[in-house]
Amino acid sequence: MCQLLGMNANTPTDVCFSFTGLATRADEHRDGFGIAFFEDKGLRHFVDHHGARHSPVAELVKRYPIRSDNVIAHIRKATQGRVALENTHPFVRELWGRYWVFAHNGDLKGFMPRLHGAFRPVGDTDSERAFCWLMQELAKAHAAVPSVAELTHTLCELLPRPAAHGSFNLLLSNGQALWAHGTTRLHWIVRQHPFGSARLADEDLSVDFATQTAASDRVAVIATEPLTLDEPWLAVAPGVLQVFEGGRLSGSVPTGG
Amino acid sequence: MCQLLGMNANTPTDVCFSFTGLATRADEHRDGFGIAFFEDKGLRHFVDHHGARHSPVAELVKRYPIRSDNVIAHIRKATQGRVALENTHPFVRELWGRYWVFAHNGDLKGFMPRLHGAFRPVGDTDSERAFCWLMQELAKAHAAVPSVAELTHTLCELLPRPAAHGSFNLLLSNGQALWAHGTTRLHWIVRQHPFGSARLADEDLSVDFATQTAASDRVAVIATEPLTLDEPWLAVAPGVLQVFEGGRLSGSVPTGG
Repeated sequence: MCQLLGMNANTPTDVCFSFTGLATRADEHRDGFGIAFFEDKGLRHFVDHHGARHSPVAELVKRYPIRSDNVIAHIRKATQGRVALENTHPFVRELWGRYWVFAHNGDLKGFMPRLHGAFRPVGDTDSERAFCWLMQELAKAHAAVPSVAELTHTLCELLPRPAAHGSFNLLLSNGQALWAHGTTRLHWIVRQHPFGSARLADEDLSVDFATQTAASDRVAVIATEPLTLDEPWLAVAPGVLQVFEGGRLSGSVPTGG
Repeated sequence: MCQLLGMNANTPTDVCFSFTGLATRADEHRDGFGIAFFEDKGLRHFVDHHGARHSPVAELVKRYPIRSDNVIAHIRKATQGRVALENTHPFVRELWGRYWVFAHNGDLKGFMPRLHGAFRPVGDTDSERAFCWLMQELAKAHAAVPSVAELTHTLCELLPRPAAHGSFNLLLSNGQALWAHGTTRLHWIVRQHPFGSARLADEDLSVDFATQTAASDRVAVIATEPLTLDEPWLAVAPGVLQVFEGGRLSGSVPTGG
């Protein structure tokens, strides 16, 4: 199964610790990885079709503390689509002068919507096809970047359609907010004052967040499986769309499926 | 002045040597750099708003031999637009299920075309605006990815419009070909059998291509200024659009300006 990782913070924060936790799981996930970092409206997007455990690009991401307020990462275990760079999540498109980043965990069987708009898949995954359809439908629903609340409302109407075709755990961000939709498996946590320490579930590595943070810092982390052993991770309920802004959960809405 | 670097090869080739030459010039160009590598239809896109001379991302690109058939790199000296990640070339968009990569050297004064299509700038540079307009006009001119010859023809009709507003040296690629348009300053060279050696113009570094290549390899390199001292670089004539495919010049067409 693929692994998702998302981060939404109220102050630019690095994800070296969490990404190290994710990359440790990469031995069973040799089919590429990718990570996208928003810095305001700008975006850094690293992908590699080599596994995250040994990729020089992953090594850079683990060691170079890129500070970002919205991050989406994905480690791939190919189920649909060949192992190729163009099939590596997260996918990026531009709409209304904003970049949009999308990563998906799960399988959609037979979701073949008509793509008549400005967004076409470059690769051959079910995930990129679903993303292009979402972007097409968002573009039809609004004339310019709407508020986060309006986007959440539109997404709640759209998500059930692909979700009816299989498991559709996803992360989506436009740099203003991060949306997390769970159908089978997605967990989240908010780290805030007073900060404790945490130990990675899969690697002998601990971090004491108290020494690395200011009292006002707040960061939400979303991942397929809890990444740490000693923190109170919560599960995203099936069919629920959660919205993260400023490092906190700002909305939790059942989709209209 | 910004520095452009393009590479088009008949077999996936790394650009470590040429990128090192380009990055050496980065001391006067502290305002960010970017590089995009096609691997078939897939794309790796590295950007940093820190200068290429000291960026860990640039260090990765110099040391990790990413093999690609089409590369576009840019080192920025900000003239229009703030120093910010979203203003860092090359820019990427998707059209017809293909990624398109664009980098520009020069200044366009007062080029404010109406952007009514699916492509909007994320940042605030004249370059990204011109790219969005080009993509919009290409999307109107063709229904799906046309042949390289047809694209060249359409580009020849389009390029004079922005070029009338200033200097418009640019590199564009969709992974199938690399287009280079010069108005003031752009040079190119084809390296092929029998390979010689070359010494970087700005750094005490030489390479003997004969030891690193097969006899059938062929690679075209395009750069703002000649990168090496001992090779016969040619200038792109003002107003001419050159097309590179399979590591050779496949077309050289005066634009209709």
